[in-house]
Amino acid sequence: MRRPEPPFLAACRRNPVPFTPVWIMRQAGRYLPEYRKVREKVDFLTLTKTPELAAEVTIQPVRRFGLDAAILFSDIMTPVEGMGVDLEFDPGPVIGNPIRRPEDVDRLRVADPRETVPFVLEAIEILRRELPESAPLIGFAGAPWTLFCYLVEGGGSKTFIKAKSFLFAEPDSARVLLNRLAEMMAAYLRAQAEAGVQALMVFDSWAGLLSPYEFRSFALPAVRRTFEGLRGLDLPLIYFPNQGSTLLEDAKLAGADVLGIDWRLPLSRARAVVGSEVAVQGNLDPAALFAPRDALGTQIRSVLREAGPEPGHIFNLGHGIERTTDPDAVAFLVDRVHEWTEGNGG
Amino acid sequence: MRRPEPPFLAACRRNPVPFTPVWIMRQAGRYLPEYRKVREKVDFLTLTKTPELAAEVTIQPVRRFGLDAAILFSDIMTPVEGMGVDLEFDPGPVIGNPIRRPEDVDRLRVADPRETVPFVLEAIEILRRELPESAPLIGFAGAPWTLFCYLVEGGGSKTFIKAKSFLFAEPDSARVLLNRLAEMMAAYLRAQAEAGVQALMVFDSWAGLLSPYEFRSFALPAVRRTFEGLRGLDLPLIYFPNQGSTLLEDAKLAGADVLGIDWRLPLSRARAVVGSEVAVQGNLDPAALFAPRDALGTQIRSVLREAGPEPGHIFNLGHGIERTTDPDAVAFLVDRVHEWTEGNGG
Repeated sequence: MRRPEPPFLAACRRNPVPFTPVWIMRQAGRYLPEYRKVREKVDFLTLTKTPELAAEVTIQPVRRFGLDAAILFSDIMTPVEGMGVDLEFDPGPVIGNPIRRPEDVDRLRVADPRETVPFVLEAIEILRRELPESAPLIGFAGAPWTLFCYLVEGGGSKTFIKAKSFLFAEPDSARVLLNRLAEMMAAYLRAQAEAGVQALMVFDSWAGLLSPYEFRSFALPAVRRTFEGLRGLDLPLIYFPNQGSTLLEDAKLAGADVLGIDWRLPLSRARAVVGSEVAVQGNLDPAALFAPRDALGTQIRSVLREAGPEPGHIFNLGHGIERTTDPDAVAFLVDRVHEWTEGNGG
Repeated sequence: MRRPEPPFLAACRRNPVPFTPVWIMRQAGRYLPEYRKVREKVDFLTLTKTPELAAEVTIQPVRRFGLDAAILFSDIMTPVEGMGVDLEFDPGPVIGNPIRRPEDVDRLRVADPRETVPFVLEAIEILRRELPESAPLIGFAGAPWTLFCYLVEGGGSKTFIKAKSFLFAEPDSARVLLNRLAEMMAAYLRAQAEAGVQALMVFDSWAGLLSPYEFRSFALPAVRRTFEGLRGLDLPLIYFPNQGSTLLEDAKLAGADVLGIDWRLPLSRARAVVGSEVAVQGNLDPAALFAPRDALGTQIRSVLREAGPEPGHIFNLGHGIERTTDPDAVAFLVDRVHEWTEGNGG
C-alpha cells in the first residue's frame, strides 16, 4: 500500500487532507533565538552559501513548531550572482552594476546552476536526508519581474521608480531582460527539483507595483515562461504575486497549482476570482501574531472560515513574519490550525 | 447669470464639464526647478510655516501647467504638532514621543487650529486672492489611520508593524486615539474651509496596510467621523484610500463625494465597485511620465477610456509624482487631457 501523501502536498493538489497544513513565510529567521545563534557566527551571505548551516536553519522551525513544510533557506538574489551581477547585502541586496541602459542587458548570461550555486543543491540533498517525511521541502526562486526590480533599481526601494521607468521607457529591452531572467529561474528551479525539493515556489514580491495592464504585458509572460520551463516535473508549483489583489485574474494564468494570497484580500474573495482549479495559500496578517492569544485565535478562525470547506488551502501568513514576533505565538498558531481543522477532510 | 462652476468642482459633483479637469498629486514639489529655488533658501518645515512662501509654491505648478485645481502646500503632519507631538522632518516625519502604551494616548489634546496652525489659514487667504478662478483651492488632512501609523510607529516604515501591532494588541486604546485624531482633523479641515478652500481632501496613504476587516473596524469609523464633522459645509469632499483596491466597498461609506483610486485598479473596475453615486479621481501610474511621449499618450488615453463617458472623473496620477519627473512630461499630460476630452460634456 502506498503511504499517504503529506498534507502539504495533498493540499497543493486539492486533495482531501486530515488537517489544514501550515507553514510560515520566512519561517527560518531572526525571530528564532536558535537562528540568531547561528547568525552570531556567520553573516547572511556566508549562511546562504554554506550547505550544512543553510540546512540547519531550514530545519530549526520545523523542529520547534511541527510545521507541514520546510522551505530552503536562501535568498531570491542568490542565483543572479552567477549571471554576472555584483551582489552584496547591506542588509538588503545592493547591486554594484545596475541595469540602466538596453546594452547593460546583454551583460547578463544564463548560467548553469550546478556550476554557479552548487551549495544550494548540496543543502537540498542534506535536507532531504534530515527532514521528517511530514515536512516536504519547498524550493524557490524570485519571479522575473521582482528580480528585474532589484537589478534595474540597484537595490531595495519604496517605489522602484527606476525599474518601473525602464519598463515604460525601454519596453523591448525590458522584455529581453525579463525573458533572460525567466529562463535562468526555470533552470534554477529545475536544478532544485533534480536535487530533491518536493514543491517549487516563485515569489513575485513586487507584483503589486504594477497595474493589471503592465502586469499582463511584462510580468505575466515572463513568469509563465518560467513555469513552462518546469513542464514534466511532477511537483506542485506555487506562485505568490504579493499585493496582487487586482492581478489575480491574470496571475492564475501563470501556470501554478497554488496561488499565494496576501492578507489584503479575504480568501473567499480570492477563491471567487481564481476559481476552484488552483489551491490557495495564506493569509493571516503577520501583525495578528502580536495580538493577545484570544484575539489571535479569532483571526486564525477568520482565515479558516474565509478559506471555506473545499480542499486546496494551505495556511500561511499573508506576508513574511516580522523579526520581533514571539515564537510562542507561532507555536500557538500552528497548534490551533491543526486542532481546529482536524477531521475536516477538506 | 451665474458664472459656470470651475470644471474641477463640477466633476467632483458629477456635473457635466467642458473637458476633464486634471491636477497632480504633489504637484508642488522637487521636480519643479522653481520649487527647488525656493527650497534652497528655506527648509521644508519653514516653508510649510511661512504663508507667503507656502502660497508661492502652491501657485507655481498652476502657473506653469494651467492645472484645474491647486492644492495647498503643507504636510499631513502639520496639525498634529499642536496636539502635543514632537515632530521633525529628516526628510520624512520623525516623532520624538511615539505612542506605545495606552496611557500615551491621553497626552494628545484636540487643539484649536486657529491657535496651532494660523500660518496654514493665512496661506489659504493669500491663495484665494492670488489663484485664478479656474483653479479652485483644495485643502487637505491626513486620515486618522494614516496619522495613527506615524504617531505610533514614530516615523516612516515599510510595514508599520508597531502601528499595526498596536491595533491588534490594544484595540480599545487604538480606537480612542483614532477618534481623537478624527476630531482634530475635522476641526482642522473645517478651519481650512472657513479660511476659504473650495474642496477638502483626506489622504489615507496607509489604508492599504489593512485588510478589509481591520479597515472596517478601525480606519473607516474614524475617517467617517472626520467627514461627519464637516456636515453642513457646501464643499466637495475627497477621500483617497491609497492602495485600497480591496477596501473600496467600505471606503465609499466614508462619506466623501469623490474617491481617489491608485493606479493598481483600472477605473472601470473601481466604478463597478463604488457605483455612480461618487466621482472618481485618478489614476495614471506616475512611472508612465518617464515613457516617450507616444507611449505616455497611450497611457493617458487608457485612463480616459477606463474612466468612461459618464460624468464624475477628475484626472490625476494614481500616486504622488516622482521628484525625478521631467516637468515637460507633466505639461504634455495636462494639455493632452484637455485636448482629448474637450467637448465630451462628460
